[in-house]
Amino acid sequence: VLVRIAVIGATGTIGKAIVEALAERHEVIGLSRGSDPRVDIDDPATIEAFYGAFPGLDAVICAAGNGVFAPLADLRPEDIEMSLRSKLLGQVNLIRLGLGAVAEGGSIIVTSGVLSTHPMPGGSALSLVNGGLEAFVRAAALEAPRGLRINAVSPGWVKETMERLGMDSSPGIPARELAKIYVGVLEGTQTGTVVPS
Amino acid sequence: VLVRIAVIGATGTIGKAIVEALAERHEVIGLSRGSDPRVDIDDPATIEAFYGAFPGLDAVICAAGNGVFAPLADLRPEDIEMSLRSKLLGQVNLIRLGLGAVAEGGSIIVTSGVLSTHPMPGGSALSLVNGGLEAFVRAAALEAPRGLRINAVSPGWVKETMERLGMDSSPGIPARELAKIYVGVLEGTQTGTVVPS
Repeated sequence: VLVRIAVIGATGTIGKAIVEALAERHEVIGLSRGSDPRVDIDDPATIEAFYGAFPGLDAVICAAGNGVFAPLADLRPEDIEMSLRSKLLGQVNLIRLGLGAVAEGGSIIVTSGVLSTHPMPGGSALSLVNGGLEAFVRAAALEAPRGLRINAVSPGWVKETMERLGMDSSPGIPARELAKIYVGVLEGTQTGTVVPS
Repeated sequence: VLVRIAVIGATGTIGKAIVEALAERHEVIGLSRGSDPRVDIDDPATIEAFYGAFPGLDAVICAAGNGVFAPLADLRPEDIEMSLRSKLLGQVNLIRLGLGAVAEGGSIIVTSGVLSTHPMPGGSALSLVNGGLEAFVRAAALEAPRGLRINAVSPGWVKETMERLGMDSSPGIPARELAKIYVGVLEGTQTGTVVPS
């Protein structure tokens, strides 16, 4: 089935791969902080404007949102605040505002991450953000109107990101493989799930 | 072993039961928004003042913090904000500031709740808060200095609360039984765990 999908964070490593994977058989609109219209997940006004500009989308996939990676002892209140504001509340707002905007039977997919369940030193703010988002997705799906489906993909470390950071990328998942998981959730029937990579 | 413990939220249904259970063999300081010194989990300044007033505590147990229970369609940004500020960030701050204040080998126990993993309609803000807190506890425990232990208790519905709300309280756990779980975590050796009731 051809569906009309917006991908938020379309210029990032994951977002770009999702756009490419979807473009094979769907109509994809790629949006980011640099696109026109500009969509900045940290700024609720741009989310509202986005839904206004693209009424009746069949699906919205978000691969945007930042969080601070820092040792617990160095974690400042403003680091936690920023992480909440961006990756957590940004995607919560995308879901909330999408409830009235996405087409009947449509799908909203957000991005959490492996630190929710597999913590590591330096990751406490991101664990909080990902854990909060995943629990919200499971709950919000119960009350989604008009058959909307709400899910999260929880990626592990992405190969291309590890390479860019100078890490050993051998355990990483290539962005192209990860993108297939988003496509699977989009084309599937599940709701309220968190799908690991 | 006799330990010196502060219980935050000591006048609530759960907090009162924890104080009673601990008083059998420990030294307990009960604190709340109405105590002197006043400890309001929503206000980081009162948390700092609390640690200043009671240096070298062996343990801190928190059963304080609010969150909004409301249908997803009615959930306003300020409801999510308040829930984050109180039950989530309040307890995150209690942990963060406790890292430098609680005695070596001491214990910090916070309270999440069953909605993190068992969502229900109306509970999406609390799911977010509890899920974020549980993930933070698992992560922060990895970096806790000086042998500090950090854990969460995740209570189901409390019998006394259900009675007060006019609900059928038969599936609820009595506060006195729940308090024993906190005592078990306090007197145990685990860290980074989330213990259901």
